[in-house]
Amino acid sequence: MKIITLLTDFGYQSHYAAVMKGVMLSLNPAVQLVDITHEVPPQDVFRGAWLLAEAAPYFPAGTIHLAVVDPGVGTERACAAAKLGDQFFVAPDNGLLGIVSRRLPPAEVIRLDRPDFRRTVVSNTFHGRDIMAPAAAHLSLGVPLRDLGPRIDILQPLPFPEVQRGDDYAAGCVIWVDGFGNLVTNIRREALPETAAGQAVVTCGERPLCDWVHTYAERPAGSCVILFGSSDYLEIAVVQGSAAEELKAKPGTPVRVQW
Amino acid sequence: MKIITLLTDFGYQSHYAAVMKGVMLSLNPAVQLVDITHEVPPQDVFRGAWLLAEAAPYFPAGTIHLAVVDPGVGTERACAAAKLGDQFFVAPDNGLLGIVSRRLPPAEVIRLDRPDFRRTVVSNTFHGRDIMAPAAAHLSLGVPLRDLGPRIDILQPLPFPEVQRGDDYAAGCVIWVDGFGNLVTNIRREALPETAAGQAVVTCGERPLCDWVHTYAERPAGSCVILFGSSDYLEIAVVQGSAAEELKAKPGTPVRVQW
Amino acid sequence: MKIITLLTDFGYQSHYAAVMKGVMLSLNPAVQLVDITHEVPPQDVFRGAWLLAEAAPYFPAGTIHLAVVDPGVGTERACAAAKLGDQFFVAPDNGLLGIVSRRLPPAEVIRLDRPDFRRTVVSNTFHGRDIMAPAAAHLSLGVPLRDLGPRIDILQPLPFPEVQRGDDYAAGCVIWVDGFGNLVTNIRREALPETAAGQAVVTCGERPLCDWVHTYAERPAGSCVILFGSSDYLEIAVVQGSAAEELKAKPGTPVRVQW
Repeated sequence: MKIITLLTDFGYQSHYAAVMKGVMLSLNPAVQLVDITHEVPPQDVFRGAWLLAEAAPYFPAGTIHLAVVDPGVGTERACAAAKLGDQFFVAPDNGLLGIVSRRLPPAEVIRLDRPDFRRTVVSNTFHGRDIMAPAAAHLSLGVPLRDLGPRIDILQPLPFPEVQRGDDYAAGCVIWVDGFGNLVTNIRREALPETAAGQAVVTCGERPLCDWVHTYAERPAGSCVILFGSSDYLEIAVVQGSAAEELKAKPGTPVRVQW
Repeated sequence: MKIITLLTDFGYQSHYAAVMKGVMLSLNPAVQLVDITHEVPPQDVFRGAWLLAEAAPYFPAGTIHLAVVDPGVGTERACAAAKLGDQFFVAPDNGLLGIVSRRLPPAEVIRLDRPDFRRTVVSNTFHGRDIMAPAAAHLSLGVPLRDLGPRIDILQPLPFPEVQRGDDYAAGCVIWVDGFGNLVTNIRREALPETAAGQAVVTCGERPLCDWVHTYAERPAGSCVILFGSSDYLEIAVVQGSAAEELKAKPGTPVRVQW
Repeated sequence: MKIITLLTDFGYQSHYAAVMKGVMLSLNPAVQLVDITHEVPPQDVFRGAWLLAEAAPYFPAGTIHLAVVDPGVGTERACAAAKLGDQFFVAPDNGLLGIVSRRLPPAEVIRLDRPDFRRTVVSNTFHGRDIMAPAAAHLSLGVPLRDLGPRIDILQPLPFPEVQRGDDYAAGCVIWVDGFGNLVTNIRREALPETAAGQAVVTCGERPLCDWVHTYAERPAGSCVILFGSSDYLEIAVVQGSAAEELKAKPGTPVRVQW
């Protein structure tokens, strides 16, 4: 049984995601549907790209990921399908695959342009329903990627904040705030010398921090701690609280590690 | 494998929808469950009816739609099951099927009154669990509609705001605000003369608008635009923003098209 | 086909629940996944335990419930798997199974400590992904509970507010507020003499109430009513409104029944 995941900015209060599911189940009633999230903030391609890249690698080989955050729907931006690593992706070619394609090597990328694999009438404002959901369903039925459209050389890139590295520092930023208020940064474990972790001073916004831990509950409630999270990103957390509120930080807030 | 969709006003923070899923899976472990939404505002039958009618037609023939927005639970209102078009519906007969039954022709409608197809003990306050989920599960097992109860002639209607049409105008209202803040109206493309689209002045509340487009990103961020959306309703949107906030509009806000 | 349910405090806007789903589907692509909720308030073990205990008994025998509300992740608290009644549970042993294990008799409880049934690298901060999701997937593949780790005698208990009972009163509290604003208390039907229901005065906070009904819509909108809800707990509701707002009540607010 084939798996199709969904990631959108449609929200759970609307029926748009269900409409895409109905379209896919009409083509392949045996597909297994898994939501990644539908709470990407409206039209926030970066956030969608980040969450997709963080989630997709955990799925079995052959999984098809349908991602729709599509502020340019109906304009010249293409709809794409791609094999990246051992997984398949269907998404607008607007940067939404820009992070995952740096992690999973692109094997094949095509532009969805074949009317046979679209709904009969294609709207201007809902290509998720009319072009991309049908493409995902056809992939799940075994249609080869190359039958869905012509190859393209490269997916639209997505500007990604890079970590600046000096002799005695690394400078990055908050890249995501999770539901606990934990600040996930773009600074990975390997960006620091081994001796830095546990000793360096981390500045988030104006606030210097130096309480390095291995997990949250090593300190009492309310403590502001530094750790490498479950995906090896440097993370700032408040035990049983919200670091985002405590430090008034959000995606983009500068984070500096000085050793 | 049979598909059952769910639409409720239970919210995602409660376990009520999962309880109905458990009841259905206990009767038919092979059913495939798909959420339409559980974020219908509490007891908002109209909103539930609208979302159900917009989503259901996209599902494959034979899909069973279980919809529970049920402020009158435990009173004399009936629980109903219906075949409308090629799809099945189970819902309180309180207007929740009032929109979809105008779009998909009713083939058969029954009142759920057979104790054999209910849970042994029926509560006064959760017929979704005790009457409707079991009925949906039995339908998914192939029990014919007529075995679930006696035929009834007509489903409870739902007052629906009709569009007033004059020689040089159509007057309707906002019917739904989606997660992007787009204002979806009850004015369909065919309610306007072909020449009106692209030229007519649209007034939403006090604000006259005349920037007709085919899709959102034709204009710069912040522009307030008019278009026919993916279901052919007249829609008012703010590019990369929220028309609902910008125009302080909500369901019921009058919308007039003058040509 | 085996069913695995999920209950977490990860929120729907994050990818963490999807990551656990990907891990499980990688081990057993044929499993059927059902969300109970991911909106347990962050690190609120009691709320998670309550919702799990209310939902789990409705699922078919053999269902596996994966519950992750885990403020002590990475500390000495164990991860547990248990057969309770005819259902299976995988959760941190921090009280999260403390309510359901009082309702469904424990048949077997083990501590998850076998590296073979974990992900190769186990993080300090996401045991849901690295230890518990793999354990649930292995159970779904038919691995016996005893193969996953050594037996333990007793699950971590969870302090539960008990009802005080006198000759002419019962004193409890609000235990949960549902999405409608209904106040669900810990006072069960059998805690009151049969004659009390319908006559007793119920005090919630400062406000005395005495309008007993069988279901919400027996009274006009805005009425504050008392009833036994669908799980036989005493419940306080405002018809087509929110009792939580009207009475400024929340979990923990005292409720007294005097007859």
